[in-house]
Amino acid sequence: MAVYTHLASGDLDALIAAYDVGDLISAKGIAEGVSNSNWLVETSGADGAGARFILTMYEKRTDPRELPFFLGLLDHLAARGCAVPATIHDREGSAFRHLDGKALALIEYLPGISPDRPSPTQAHAVGEALARVHLAARDFEGTRANDLDVHACLVILERCGVAKLAEIDPELGEWLGEARELVGRWPDDLPQSIIHSDLFPDNVLMLGERVTGLIDFYFACEDMMAYDLAVTHAAWCFDRGGAVFSADIGRSLVGGYESVRPLEPAERRALPLLAQGACLRFTASRAQDWLDTPTDALVTRKDPMDFIRRWKYYRAHGERLFA
Amino acid sequence: MAVYTHLASGDLDALIAAYDVGDLISAKGIAEGVSNSNWLVETSGADGAGARFILTMYEKRTDPRELPFFLGLLDHLAARGCAVPATIHDREGSAFRHLDGKALALIEYLPGISPDRPSPTQAHAVGEALARVHLAARDFEGTRANDLDVHACLVILERCGVAKLAEIDPELGEWLGEARELVGRWPDDLPQSIIHSDLFPDNVLMLGERVTGLIDFYFACEDMMAYDLAVTHAAWCFDRGGAVFSADIGRSLVGGYESVRPLEPAERRALPLLAQGACLRFTASRAQDWLDTPTDALVTRKDPMDFIRRWKYYRAHGERLFA
Repeated sequence: MAVYTHLASGDLDALIAAYDVGDLISAKGIAEGVSNSNWLVETSGADGAGARFILTMYEKRTDPRELPFFLGLLDHLAARGCAVPATIHDREGSAFRHLDGKALALIEYLPGISPDRPSPTQAHAVGEALARVHLAARDFEGTRANDLDVHACLVILERCGVAKLAEIDPELGEWLGEARELVGRWPDDLPQSIIHSDLFPDNVLMLGERVTGLIDFYFACEDMMAYDLAVTHAAWCFDRGGAVFSADIGRSLVGGYESVRPLEPAERRALPLLAQGACLRFTASRAQDWLDTPTDALVTRKDPMDFIRRWKYYRAHGERLFA
Repeated sequence: MAVYTHLASGDLDALIAAYDVGDLISAKGIAEGVSNSNWLVETSGADGAGARFILTMYEKRTDPRELPFFLGLLDHLAARGCAVPATIHDREGSAFRHLDGKALALIEYLPGISPDRPSPTQAHAVGEALARVHLAARDFEGTRANDLDVHACLVILERCGVAKLAEIDPELGEWLGEARELVGRWPDDLPQSIIHSDLFPDNVLMLGERVTGLIDFYFACEDMMAYDLAVTHAAWCFDRGGAVFSADIGRSLVGGYESVRPLEPAERRALPLLAQGACLRFTASRAQDWLDTPTDALVTRKDPMDFIRRWKYYRAHGERLFA
């Protein structure tokens, strides 16, 4: 949540002039995205009627060599009617430009607000939107491996080590064994596509009960579609730090997904395990961030235990939940 | 530069419904303002044609008892044609509301970009806009004392103490004596109005050579108009941390001001001293912030020496500069 780089007004003018979007009218740095700088940009529009865009400057956590994948994916999905922002190409047809050694992209602005406490109807709509992305992405030609799959996440936890994990929370250290066992049973034969893999409510824009945008595809990768549904399930169905599960939201999310793309029997059987894998994924990255962030830093650290609570829930109730 | 508070989507909906501005369409936290949280809000508009606003949540540095002054001033100036954002009043006529114990105001969104390297023409326009505010504010009924006048700023420096000041920079400690001498000669008989008192380029929005908005009036107070011009001079005429003075910008700024409100002879004679007082003002607040901010904090501290360099320049060249 930050703007890491100052953009001088002259540089902004020159940048916007490279696109066929009219003249620059306003640019406000926005407090969104944890790893890139973003501005909400207003221009007079190619037709003079006004237009808005998100300008993203890619900071060090995004490898610029991956931008053709990320931005190409947005264009591919948008062209197929998915609710994702399209990339604006410059006058030379390029999806991104460079300034002071950093890559920048101008991206379609979409209306909508991220829901805080989603209703079942909203969850249903999100499930539908996710399934549409999975289907539409199947013929996307780009590829990107999941560098945060369960195997990589187990390595992260092993590197943290039981002692350090137990410093975060005495219980956390005990989950390393559970993680090893889970990875040993991890399936690799379920149908794949490009998945979002980080579809928390923050990354969904809605107007009322309609999804207006799925955003922040910077973790998108090739992986099992049912795993993406499991990630979304873990991200949407719990309240108060993972302590309270909402069966309604869960049923609506899966129901929405299946109204567009019915799950295969093997996918459905795997969901309890996949949901636990989603919990491993966020436990691992949060534990690493926790240990890497000084205790007196101004950045709020996310508690890895939020996902241990979810993990426990799926371990205890997963079979019944996804039956 | 931050958003300190999370606003839940339901709270945002309810808040916007209290105003006659249509339905909420989008809200992005913006990285502007050092002490309050701000969102750029889009609604469907009272007439359905779309509208945008800045939503400000007042955090602890703004005393809510002063909001009637700050927001009333904006309305007063906007009604007189000054380029400032008007306050949007809710359906009950109130200029601000409360949520979770914090005050919030919905404020007109203005187009424009803050200039990084102003041209003389831009400086001229800013001088004009400042003079218009001074004239228009003269019959504003609210009052607010300048709690950061040179007397208060001297107290701040005295409290820092020579030793601590010298830790920031060996030269800084030596300026305490200079500050005492300056405050001893400070005038109190020049014409007053409500002044902005913090009109850095960050607080001015421009489209090309036109001023579209003076913003961030949260230091506005009753004080000498010529002092406000001196503050603006110190804020606009130097580059590279106060090391490089631009005579062109200075002449254009004062020329623009005088094209709307000619200075009285006593004001003109006082400008060299007032400009040094402006440097004392920002030296003091920056020194205090510097000493209050831990060295490993993520917040960038502003160097108090930027204004010592300006102070030196005015002391050496002020008489000639403003002759």
